[in-house]
Amino acid sequence: MSGDVPDSPRSSFPAPPPSRDALPTAETIAAVMGRLRARRPRIHVLTSPVAQTFTANMLLAAGAHPSMTTAPEEVPAFVAASDGLLINLGMLDRVRRDASLTAIEVAKEAGVPWVLDPVKVELSPSRLDYARKLMELEPALVHANHSEFRGLAGEEAEDWAVRDYAVRSISTLAVTGEIDIVTDGKRLVRVANGHPLMDRVTAMGCAGIAIATAFRAVEPDPILAAVAALVVIGVAGEIAASTANGPGTFAVEIIDALYALDAETLLERAKIR
Amino acid sequence: MSGDVPDSPRSSFPAPPPSRDALPTAETIAAVMGRLRARRPRIHVLTSPVAQTFTANMLLAAGAHPSMTTAPEEVPAFVAASDGLLINLGMLDRVRRDASLTAIEVAKEAGVPWVLDPVKVELSPSRLDYARKLMELEPALVHANHSEFRGLAGEEAEDWAVRDYAVRSISTLAVTGEIDIVTDGKRLVRVANGHPLMDRVTAMGCAGIAIATAFRAVEPDPILAAVAALVVIGVAGEIAASTANGPGTFAVEIIDALYALDAETLLERAKIR
Amino acid sequence: MSGDVPDSPRSSFPAPPPSRDALPTAETIAAVMGRLRARRPRIHVLTSPVAQTFTANMLLAAGAHPSMTTAPEEVPAFVAASDGLLINLGMLDRVRRDASLTAIEVAKEAGVPWVLDPVKVELSPSRLDYARKLMELEPALVHANHSEFRGLAGEEAEDWAVRDYAVRSISTLAVTGEIDIVTDGKRLVRVANGHPLMDRVTAMGCAGIAIATAFRAVEPDPILAAVAALVVIGVAGEIAASTANGPGTFAVEIIDALYALDAETLLERAKIR
Repeated sequence: MSGDVPDSPRSSFPAPPPSRDALPTAETIAAVMGRLRARRPRIHVLTSPVAQTFTANMLLAAGAHPSMTTAPEEVPAFVAASDGLLINLGMLDRVRRDASLTAIEVAKEAGVPWVLDPVKVELSPSRLDYARKLMELEPALVHANHSEFRGLAGEEAEDWAVRDYAVRSISTLAVTGEIDIVTDGKRLVRVANGHPLMDRVTAMGCAGIAIATAFRAVEPDPILAAVAALVVIGVAGEIAASTANGPGTFAVEIIDALYALDAETLLERAKIR
Repeated sequence: MSGDVPDSPRSSFPAPPPSRDALPTAETIAAVMGRLRARRPRIHVLTSPVAQTFTANMLLAAGAHPSMTTAPEEVPAFVAASDGLLINLGMLDRVRRDASLTAIEVAKEAGVPWVLDPVKVELSPSRLDYARKLMELEPALVHANHSEFRGLAGEEAEDWAVRDYAVRSISTLAVTGEIDIVTDGKRLVRVANGHPLMDRVTAMGCAGIAIATAFRAVEPDPILAAVAALVVIGVAGEIAASTANGPGTFAVEIIDALYALDAETLLERAKIR
Repeated sequence: MSGDVPDSPRSSFPAPPPSRDALPTAETIAAVMGRLRARRPRIHVLTSPVAQTFTANMLLAAGAHPSMTTAPEEVPAFVAASDGLLINLGMLDRVRRDASLTAIEVAKEAGVPWVLDPVKVELSPSRLDYARKLMELEPALVHANHSEFRGLAGEEAEDWAVRDYAVRSISTLAVTGEIDIVTDGKRLVRVANGHPLMDRVTAMGCAGIAIATAFRAVEPDPILAAVAALVVIGVAGEIAASTANGPGTFAVEIIDALYALDAETLLERAKIR
């Protein structure tokens, strides 16, 4: 969970640059991916039932160890032993509402970074209220697609509006779409990797943010962690799409592509602007 | 949800025939499939946890937008914004019992058609009671396999018995088996598409009725919507079986086949009697 | 559930040996697999949400009929109609805690064998307490990986410690790792089948024990049932790994391999020590 643990001998990636104001590069993304595989962080995920299995398999393929229990008597021990926490609001129910508050409290006490994915808040006023409450608890990163961003910020996801919302909410935001935007208000990075088939697989976006949580567990800069996840899942999606026959094989082959992804391919295919 | 929205330019299928007494043909099925892809209806699904991910991916592959939340404070907004509602009783629990009643009430007020899949009612007296209660709330379509039909109707699924039960329950029924029967008591249609591997994948039947719900969202005739779904999923199953090595690859490739299915293949392979 | 039902004509496997002290052989494992496919037992599974779909599909591929309902008013009817019961403690919640006690009570009254998989007990004191309580209710078989065994027994999973814990808990244990150990305290069998990719797919271990439950439904000797499951899933994993490109295709192809596994391949590849 800290930047000062040396890479294991298995990792051939260089150390990340020390500066907190640096912009992500394909090289620093490759380094973060190498650290994830070397350290195999535990990620506790409170997520939609429909997303659980795919998210767990994507985290395992990326090199992390997922856990997902929601029971109030178990969440504290699991979160305290984790290196990162993801709160995804898809299919939000009473148990996960309560578990999320407990989990965030434990995470903050233990110094475990946590990430918020306020799925479909634009469709449910009660979920939007809850998401706003959670945003006051200082997530390391918040994800939204364009509709969700409109729900949260009341604006279209133009650069200025995303930057402005990041400043107002004191958060790092990853707003995904055809071109993804990641910003903390000061730095703003665009990622152009990905493939249209990603929209035809349930929980693809959820899994991408789970991987951002895993990267955040091994990289203190939330901008670099988020950009790394969007590039890595986007490149894996492009590779899977090149052989898939449709969304069924695509959802399987993106797991293989994520597992097999190497630094050379990342350096060649990362589209960061 | 209405018949008067023009197809998008992407769709090359002709408009459906206006008559409510017409029997489905391969041509009208292809037209319904084209409308689904053009309109991309939202389908809210209250279903078994074991069926959620596969159902969501099959709906996405077919062209629909699934949502699945069960929380009492969220169900009304999701159902009111949907074009179709599916209530599947697999693994029925207290939360989904309550959510289903709320969801049906909202659907009826908003004019959203709803479909009932009373999974495994023959194995649970309390679930059977609940299913009978729901059948009084006028589902657009009810699905049962042969065992479930015996549980509901107390008779074997012979033509006369299925027809009689449709009349008694004032419903359109789809009774699936080696040959599927769809009837509203007056019209009776048989579908002979499909493959034995479909019985070796969990939630395959559930996903088929989810697709019927999506078709009902773009086609007012429940007979045509149900027959279209059984033909489309059956043909996709036949295509997947021709390349699959077993139930694992079959469950993946049927998603690809559903996504890629074109009108020509439907016209060639539909087995309606 | 009994040993005196004749195999169906589909099965070409010989009858199992009558002795309760015999050690499993590739031949007796093949016979158990043949009986499972011929009898198609019903297995009721109370398991982690993240494991449900994969477990159901693995049981279907092996030849069993899964059910998974957790509702208190439904569990008794489903368990009483089943041939085997699996209690998996992954993501244990209040509903499944209550359902498990009911299910075990019904199973014991009806003579249905039940199996315990105390997933991740080492990470949660409340789950460990609950697992210990369940172990007093005489499971036919208990599964643990090395970390879970340490949590349960307070010792490393050395042969003597596993044997000792089996005697103390009056249970048959299957402790899985690179080499699996199955023992009732007297007999001790090692299984060396499997592949490292199995650790990169969520619920792979859960599915393996579900198959052990299905084998126990058609084979009274828990040692033979457990060893058969570990050999069968291990061989299926080896076959899948030989063609898979990563954990995504591996998770799909192991289902195909399990479905297609024949006695000849088992005899050739079983590694029992």
